[in-house]
Amino acid sequence: MIKGCQNECMAGGCAGEATKHVTESFKASDLIITPAATLKEKPDPSGLVFGAVFTDNMLTIEWSLASGWEKPYIKPLENLSLHPASSSLHYAIELFEGMKAYRGVDDKIRLFRPSLNMKRMARSARRATLPCFDENELLECIRKLVEVEKEWVPYSTAASLYIRPTLIGTEPSLGVKKPTKALLYVILSPVGPYFASGSFNPISLWADPKYVRAWKGGTGDCKLGGNYGSSIYAQREALELGCQQVLWLYGEDHQITEVGTMNLFLYWINEDGEDELATPPLDGIILPGVTRQSILDLACNWGEFKVSERYITMSDLTAALEENRVKEMFGAGTACVVCPISEILYKGKHLHIPTMENGPQLATRFLNKLSDIQYGREDSNWAVLVS
Amino acid sequence: MIKGCQNECMAGGCAGEATKHVTESFKASDLIITPAATLKEKPDPSGLVFGAVFTDNMLTIEWSLASGWEKPYIKPLENLSLHPASSSLHYAIELFEGMKAYRGVDDKIRLFRPSLNMKRMARSARRATLPCFDENELLECIRKLVEVEKEWVPYSTAASLYIRPTLIGTEPSLGVKKPTKALLYVILSPVGPYFASGSFNPISLWADPKYVRAWKGGTGDCKLGGNYGSSIYAQREALELGCQQVLWLYGEDHQITEVGTMNLFLYWINEDGEDELATPPLDGIILPGVTRQSILDLACNWGEFKVSERYITMSDLTAALEENRVKEMFGAGTACVVCPISEILYKGKHLHIPTMENGPQLATRFLNKLSDIQYGREDSNWAVLVS
Repeated sequence: MIKGCQNECMAGGCAGEATKHVTESFKASDLIITPAATLKEKPDPSGLVFGAVFTDNMLTIEWSLASGWEKPYIKPLENLSLHPASSSLHYAIELFEGMKAYRGVDDKIRLFRPSLNMKRMARSARRATLPCFDENELLECIRKLVEVEKEWVPYSTAASLYIRPTLIGTEPSLGVKKPTKALLYVILSPVGPYFASGSFNPISLWADPKYVRAWKGGTGDCKLGGNYGSSIYAQREALELGCQQVLWLYGEDHQITEVGTMNLFLYWINEDGEDELATPPLDGIILPGVTRQSILDLACNWGEFKVSERYITMSDLTAALEENRVKEMFGAGTACVVCPISEILYKGKHLHIPTMENGPQLATRFLNKLSDIQYGREDSNWAVLVS
Repeated sequence: MIKGCQNECMAGGCAGEATKHVTESFKASDLIITPAATLKEKPDPSGLVFGAVFTDNMLTIEWSLASGWEKPYIKPLENLSLHPASSSLHYAIELFEGMKAYRGVDDKIRLFRPSLNMKRMARSARRATLPCFDENELLECIRKLVEVEKEWVPYSTAASLYIRPTLIGTEPSLGVKKPTKALLYVILSPVGPYFASGSFNPISLWADPKYVRAWKGGTGDCKLGGNYGSSIYAQREALELGCQQVLWLYGEDHQITEVGTMNLFLYWINEDGEDELATPPLDGIILPGVTRQSILDLACNWGEFKVSERYITMSDLTAALEENRVKEMFGAGTACVVCPISEILYKGKHLHIPTMENGPQLATRFLNKLSDIQYGREDSNWAVLVS
């Protein structure tokens, strides 16, 4: 008998449970709403630091293997009371999502393609061996939370309410195993304008194969906590070298993968002389970003240039720079929608990317189009009304 | 200005802080000890599940960028009160250690090479961008905690008190950045005998390159939470296939790296006909285990066979199995000291490893030697007296 060893070494978790998790879910109709009686003062949206101020209430839903999902609660924001052995604190059994609620020019509040976030969250949950749930029920709970907190959605088309769904293992024991307890919660944070001046502020990147964000057979295509914590050390080195973000490379041929916590796009004239918008394919090491997908969808719909999910190596890029074939390069994510790139430090050389010299026309077009949908200036089924 | 974007995308953290962390530490002489007034009943050590029962008290030490380390506390075990935005819960900014206290045949309590754990913990802290501390001060705090809880160290040479030092980011904001708040804590859990029957129970492994535990440029050589949570999904698949643990492979040539949460050893006649004890080298993807190091140290000291930190691929192993050159294969870790391997499922084939047929002589010798030191049957400077 190797009782202790098997436990530490991850025995436990049984296949039969899967069915149970998939079929059982909490229900939004069971929501128990007891909002905060005293409300905090809302901050001026122009002075906000990302994710530092939170609204008055939160959504919490507890799960256990024994009882399944409990009823969802919307209640005053408060500290979590966690056993010090909780599996999220030791083994990073945890995942999150990032989405936003926007107050439109018509004063209506909208979410942007929220079902894509719910779908990705469910996929992350499977990878993290955390319990599954009905994506529509969670979305409806989040909608209700935003409705309760609607006064926190900034009265500004340059700000929004950031929504952070989170799912953590709360198993109070040290065996490395599928948790038998979990907590799903959602907190909200008003976030300020990304481009306060109305114009882009391009960033410089550090590209070095020394640190690798994600790898085949790992978890880079899911939004698990472990992907992020491990990145900060590299980010510090980038800052020390005068760059603002890390350009994550992969493999012997230095494939370009992501930038900081954003997906990456290159708009260029490709090797065959074609106008092309390119982003790395979802091959297991790329996070399937909602903004990434939306940019691809828009570009395909426009049909004005080639749109490719393809590999791009640093030598592809340097060759294109030498031949003046690069037009724009930008990160894409929920936080800033698009983030222009002006420089890459690679092998000791500062490569200038002429994104700003070229407008950036395409990046601006994406930003405007997506903002128009998010703030209700344009009708789209990508925008989902909260109230 | 890209205020929000830079924050979500990990700006923040400044190089100048590093010096401050290294030079400043909490002091064991500042310990404030207020132990639990009512004590729990101690469980029968023979029936314990790993890491499920905890002692009455815990050690906690808070840190903030503004004030540095606070005084260390030994106080009743209680739930942690954490802001729901804590960086450990979202970005896995967290690490841990695993060590044990043993009650010897002379009734004295010993730790086993604890300074190696402290050193590794400090290294993990740097990688996770968590604050540094004086390793000796932490060790002395842990010694004091074990002293307070000495009655929890099982009166058995087949059981021990597992010690779990943990360091987590408690930054209460959502920017992906070096945390400005952290909590170091230590909890204790009595753990039962690993080999209750007095004989080994060998395990079977699943070797598939589909999942990769760690990679060059990642964090596999540090004890960060993210390395563990991502492994459970693969472990479930191993169990479904009738295997007990995952044998983690790496690279195109299917290098053998680790097993479950243990280091791996192969005792064989190598390609040159030499008697060799081999384990993969510390090249960045291998956790530098204390048991691993101790086995290497013992074997080198014995000088009876070749001892190598070297690469071993699955084809090296299968060739050796076909030529009857494999003697023993075993995992090594704090939990079970050594854990014999009897079978590997690889490319659909069940490879039989003749570990048990060969005693396992060497594995047993390591187990006995290390146990003798841990339980005070043999004097060694690897054993550090608690009281």
